Amino acid sequence: MIAQEKRVRARDLGISIGILPTGKWNAITDVEGVKVGHVSVIQGDSVRTGVTAIIPHDGNIFQDKVPAAVYVGNGFGKLMGISQIRELGNIETPILLTNTLNAPKVADALIDYMIHLPGNEKVRSVNPVVGETNDGGLNDIRGRHVHKEHVFQSLKEAKTGPVAEGNVGAGVGTETLGFKGGIGTASRKLPPSKGGYTVGVLVQSNFGGVLQINGAPVGRELHNFYMMEKKEPHKVDGSCMIIIATDAPLSPRNLERLAKRSYIAFGNVGAFSSNGSGDYSIAFSTHPACRVPYNGKTIEMEVKDVHNDEMSALFMAVWEATEEALLNSLFMAEDMTGINKRTVRSLPIKETLQILKKYNVLNHDKLPKATTK
Amino acid sequence: MIAQEKRVRARDLGISIGILPTGKWNAITDVEGVKVGHVSVIQGDSVRTGVTAIIPHDGNIFQDKVPAAVYVGNGFGKLMGISQIRELGNIETPILLTNTLNAPKVADALIDYMIHLPGNEKVRSVNPVVGETNDGGLNDIRGRHVHKEHVFQSLKEAKTGPVAEGNVGAGVGTETLGFKGGIGTASRKLPPSKGGYTVGVLVQSNFGGVLQINGAPVGRELHNFYMMEKKEPHKVDGSCMIIIATDAPLSPRNLERLAKRSYIAFGNVGAFSSNGSGDYSIAFSTHPACRVPYNGKTIEMEVKDVHNDEMSALFMAVWEATEEALLNSLFMAEDMTGINKRTVRSLPIKETLQILKKYNVLNHDKLPKATTK
Amino acid sequence: MIAQEKRVRARDLGISIGILPTGKWNAITDVEGVKVGHVSVIQGDSVRTGVTAIIPHDGNIFQDKVPAAVYVGNGFGKLMGISQIRELGNIETPILLTNTLNAPKVADALIDYMIHLPGNEKVRSVNPVVGETNDGGLNDIRGRHVHKEHVFQSLKEAKTGPVAEGNVGAGVGTETLGFKGGIGTASRKLPPSKGGYTVGVLVQSNFGGVLQINGAPVGRELHNFYMMEKKEPHKVDGSCMIIIATDAPLSPRNLERLAKRSYIAFGNVGAFSSNGSGDYSIAFSTHPACRVPYNGKTIEMEVKDVHNDEMSALFMAVWEATEEALLNSLFMAEDMTGINKRTVRSLPIKETLQILKKYNVLNHDKLPKATTK
Amino acid sequence: MIAQEKRVRARDLGISIGILPTGKWNAITDVEGVKVGHVSVIQGDSVRTGVTAIIPHDGNIFQDKVPAAVYVGNGFGKLMGISQIRELGNIETPILLTNTLNAPKVADALIDYMIHLPGNEKVRSVNPVVGETNDGGLNDIRGRHVHKEHVFQSLKEAKTGPVAEGNVGAGVGTETLGFKGGIGTASRKLPPSKGGYTVGVLVQSNFGGVLQINGAPVGRELHNFYMMEKKEPHKVDGSCMIIIATDAPLSPRNLERLAKRSYIAFGNVGAFSSNGSGDYSIAFSTHPACRVPYNGKTIEMEVKDVHNDEMSALFMAVWEATEEALLNSLFMAEDMTGINKRTVRSLPIKETLQILKKYNVLNHDKLPKATTK
Repeated sequence: MIAQEKRVRARDLGISIGILPTGKWNAITDVEGVKVGHVSVIQGDSVRTGVTAIIPHDGNIFQDKVPAAVYVGNGFGKLMGISQIRELGNIETPILLTNTLNAPKVADALIDYMIHLPGNEKVRSVNPVVGETNDGGLNDIRGRHVHKEHVFQSLKEAKTGPVAEGNVGAGVGTETLGFKGGIGTASRKLPPSKGGYTVGVLVQSNFGGVLQINGAPVGRELHNFYMMEKKEPHKVDGSCMIIIATDAPLSPRNLERLAKRSYIAFGNVGAFSSNGSGDYSIAFSTHPACRVPYNGKTIEMEVKDVHNDEMSALFMAVWEATEEALLNSLFMAEDMTGINKRTVRSLPIKETLQILKKYNVLNHDKLPKATTK
Repeated sequence: MIAQEKRVRARDLGISIGILPTGKWNAITDVEGVKVGHVSVIQGDSVRTGVTAIIPHDGNIFQDKVPAAVYVGNGFGKLMGISQIRELGNIETPILLTNTLNAPKVADALIDYMIHLPGNEKVRSVNPVVGETNDGGLNDIRGRHVHKEHVFQSLKEAKTGPVAEGNVGAGVGTETLGFKGGIGTASRKLPPSKGGYTVGVLVQSNFGGVLQINGAPVGRELHNFYMMEKKEPHKVDGSCMIIIATDAPLSPRNLERLAKRSYIAFGNVGAFSSNGSGDYSIAFSTHPACRVPYNGKTIEMEVKDVHNDEMSALFMAVWEATEEALLNSLFMAEDMTGINKRTVRSLPIKETLQILKKYNVLNHDKLPKATTK
Repeated sequence: MIAQEKRVRARDLGISIGILPTGKWNAITDVEGVKVGHVSVIQGDSVRTGVTAIIPHDGNIFQDKVPAAVYVGNGFGKLMGISQIRELGNIETPILLTNTLNAPKVADALIDYMIHLPGNEKVRSVNPVVGETNDGGLNDIRGRHVHKEHVFQSLKEAKTGPVAEGNVGAGVGTETLGFKGGIGTASRKLPPSKGGYTVGVLVQSNFGGVLQINGAPVGRELHNFYMMEKKEPHKVDGSCMIIIATDAPLSPRNLERLAKRSYIAFGNVGAFSSNGSGDYSIAFSTHPACRVPYNGKTIEMEVKDVHNDEMSALFMAVWEATEEALLNSLFMAEDMTGINKRTVRSLPIKETLQILKKYNVLNHDKLPKATTK
Repeated sequence: MIAQEKRVRARDLGISIGILPTGKWNAITDVEGVKVGHVSVIQGDSVRTGVTAIIPHDGNIFQDKVPAAVYVGNGFGKLMGISQIRELGNIETPILLTNTLNAPKVADALIDYMIHLPGNEKVRSVNPVVGETNDGGLNDIRGRHVHKEHVFQSLKEAKTGPVAEGNVGAGVGTETLGFKGGIGTASRKLPPSKGGYTVGVLVQSNFGGVLQINGAPVGRELHNFYMMEKKEPHKVDGSCMIIIATDAPLSPRNLERLAKRSYIAFGNVGAFSSNGSGDYSIAFSTHPACRVPYNGKTIEMEVKDVHNDEMSALFMAVWEATEEALLNSLFMAEDMTGINKRTVRSLPIKETLQILKKYNVLNHDKLPKATTK
């Protein structure tokens, strides 16, 4: 067995993506109030899966919904809750991520959780938002091993601050760009002249392509990419869930526009959203003025939105943060052996750093950046 | 207790909708190969729910998918499977209908069923299509009383021929236009000059409005409609699932256009798709030339489609059949008492017939009809 | 030559649609600030066309945009401006209606008008919204006879108050359900408990089907409908433009939902949106709190929206008003002879009234109505 | 005045994008039958605009339509023809590109051209497809200087073979990523195991961001990017039209999926689709089996499609070709001085090559590539 390298986040290796500064944790939790909870379900030789919960705020989300939108990059996937999010413009549950065949079971548990929250005793309809990617290359996915107690635990233990990445929660069994993938996160902060908003992204990465890191052709250098001739072909399919939080006050319309920009970040890591990849982005705003009360007492509501003309900086922020979150999911994931004794190697950090040096992309932090005003 | 009237289908009462002839059973099963299975789950005082299965053909649907499309009328609902149907243009499971909070559990059972079919032993991804409406006015919906065995039974017992309507399967606990709703079905057959195709529709009706029957203002005559001043206001919300089968060879694009026309039929029964109504139409083609094989051995596939210019007659067929299926769901449903001892009355047939006579709408069969050539 | 009957609006003949009261003029101009201008272009034997302008408010609409949305019922049509309306959620010009092949020329004139308005001297981008239906059955449509001066005149002469209907403006050469169609309008007013809002609709009708009037099967009684066997087949294709104004403060999302409900009204007049019909609905809000300033000086904007839960009454209002506007377009249009000496007859009022009496649908005003509270 | 550098295509400078081989001309014209025509309209000090025509095949396109789809990346733009392409799944005219305010006038000329083609004498409806970007920074855009004769000339002179790039046709006055943009093109060829198809792309580039070339941070190195602090801020808005041709037999559904992947290529050149950028992709198939006849004599048609599972290689091809076409638009454009004596510099080739060397990205051609089998 090869001794595994210590995993490090991309930025700690000198890989700085883009021109905008990160938030404190460089994580989705930099958006105030957002919490993340992971439960990894690793059992015996073949259970390699889990669940990840993203909670928009501390209150009862059904009673106090947040504006939200979904962008479907490639719909080969089973994300639950799309049409109601689009129709009503909000989410009324935390967002859960898990494996493909487990999504309904996790959704049922989420319903259970929601209808029994204090205050929800009379609720008879709830729209569970559950995303998934397929971890069947390492996990006994047909067994649907994520159970209600895992879901409840992920919700209970969710917290703010640094977020665990790599082989955790819904990322335990995923593969990305020929290497072990998983959970990744990052954030960006806009300068005051652009509203000073924070955008946080969390990804569950599980897809193929031709890996690029900060512009360097790492996949080709490592001889591991789609359409390369070799014995075991590079797995191009899979999926990617992208969860986006922001404290900017955004309407569902502008949230959908924001979500769409995360799709562009695929190009920057060398992916092109293959046929078998279920690529979805969900964006929500935590801004207090945008909350949607259940059973509002008035006919009209007052809300805030960012002017269309001021959206571009937010678009850049989500684009940068998604790229970095995807890279973090690679850099933080460790080797994993699972079902049928199959092993998926993690991205070799040492070798990768040499490639990054060859392409001189470790010193981007010295290049000019965005205004800080 | 009032003795219940014997329930009769609309057409058997002299209510003939539209200008096209029906198929043999005037049911979705007139489309060759389509089967329907109902399991009603009625227990004690408060369990009033069930599951309905619509099966496109006799084979292994995962291995031999059918082209399909979804139209979202009003997305306040939890229909599962939408984005993959849209992306790939097909369905790979039977369609199941149930109650709102039970949808994930039913989907989990459907996954179970699909991955264990002979030939599917290695399948690690399946897109369960499960629709729902909210029967919480009569049913202990929070209890999620539809279990795996009900799902399996509905699939096992599905059959062609006449289809049970009213308080059966997923229609046990639903309410429509102020009266007891439920399952309804109808079909239309085009003349040879228009292709001779059959279009079949099955609905799970559960919504409000201002009931019209063949043009007659029955809801107003019966003093039961939305925005009427009365003690217990007319329940306008709910949902409607509309399943459409045809033997016409249609691409997903033309199937979506077909599905959309069913939405127009709401107007004909006096509904307008209220905010709280999850109104979805799913259309599929059973034409053998349109099947989509799993793991096709070739790069290209040959398919058939109906020319755009020839779609109008199919549009009229689905519009007529949907209106009649909705009426059948009302005429065939019986009174139902459920949770909290609440009773929902069925449409009073005798009184309704008097209204229809007043408006002279029972003799439409004598009016000119569509060409039979 | 047959002496033409005097044309009368549907309601003045005793045809009252629905349960809600109309506004003062029963026209789109009941929404305060909305103006309509028609220019009919009728020349010689074969020019039978025109232009109709709908102006949301008195100001410079480019500088002071209104929230708006488009619903595409059937996209066989050339409505210009859709994608920008959807992306940005607003319109920045008046809405113009004309004939199919004239749409670009009219749009060019609208650009001319807009960029030369005082205050727009530096404007280098504008999104002209121009809808159309095909009047080629009566009009020399290939000649594109609507010119810049007609456009300017329609904008200049636009006014509030009663709106001319039938063979005017963009309705000069259109045909509907087998008879002469054209422009129609209607409005609805909600009771105070539902916000007291006004919804106004204006249609340019030009499509086929099986005419129903307030539920009565008029098309079949008059032996004039789609798929009837006869020498000259009923023209089922064409198009319908539906313009919706409201003073309710609505987000683009809720405006799109509102626009969609107008599509349901097709069923009520006996149409099903045939393949060749370009059916589009555009909705906008005139509420002052929803205006979108060009070059806003702030990053954030405050807006109002109606709670999702309160939308149903607005949905009913637009459904009713669209049905009535469509009927008005038929009742107000006169016979028209045009290109190739072809004549399209107007709906025969006397005969139609006899049919309506046969079906007892002239006394709906005595039936129970919506609450007035 | 600075002597301008000779312009060279990216690949001729040693910049090889991706892992797939190009077609013969590395141009959209590598797809057999496709022709491109440019007319540059450059007059006096301030007219800097033009028109570019892309013609799918040699025949009468109205009579012999090609399957097509549109992807709307960011809808701040005035692309004409979208809804009919989506509804019917085809285009029936060549695609024209021009400037924003000229789009309707060019569309009117295209109608003129189409309805007077031999065989179209009775055509009364045509859907002109006209895209645009805003060249108002160099061009007197308010003057709408592209006239009917320019349109006719672009159609007449369209040809196969190498395609002029940079400041030609619709690209005369555009700006990209802080430098002079314009027309660019590229193509990719798949290996036989993936169908051997060709994908060609032509872009009209006009947008901002943070320029990357083959991964190298050129925009930052040249101190010219969005959100950089400087006197004249980097213009982030604009637009991009992306036209995609392929000889693969694709349904409109798969063409839309293909078109969507071109959006991902924005990331690779450092763009994120800003608020003010009208970013649209139009894809069409030239495969003879996919043609759509006007007035088909049968009810059904036989068509071909590529299996969903085989789409990924095509997705990669369009992604690579779009990136390279965008770069070609920069490398081939020359300095341009226009309205208000404003000059936009072209990308400095010598300096850029030094940067590319610094980042070692000129030798990608030596890295492993896709299988050629």
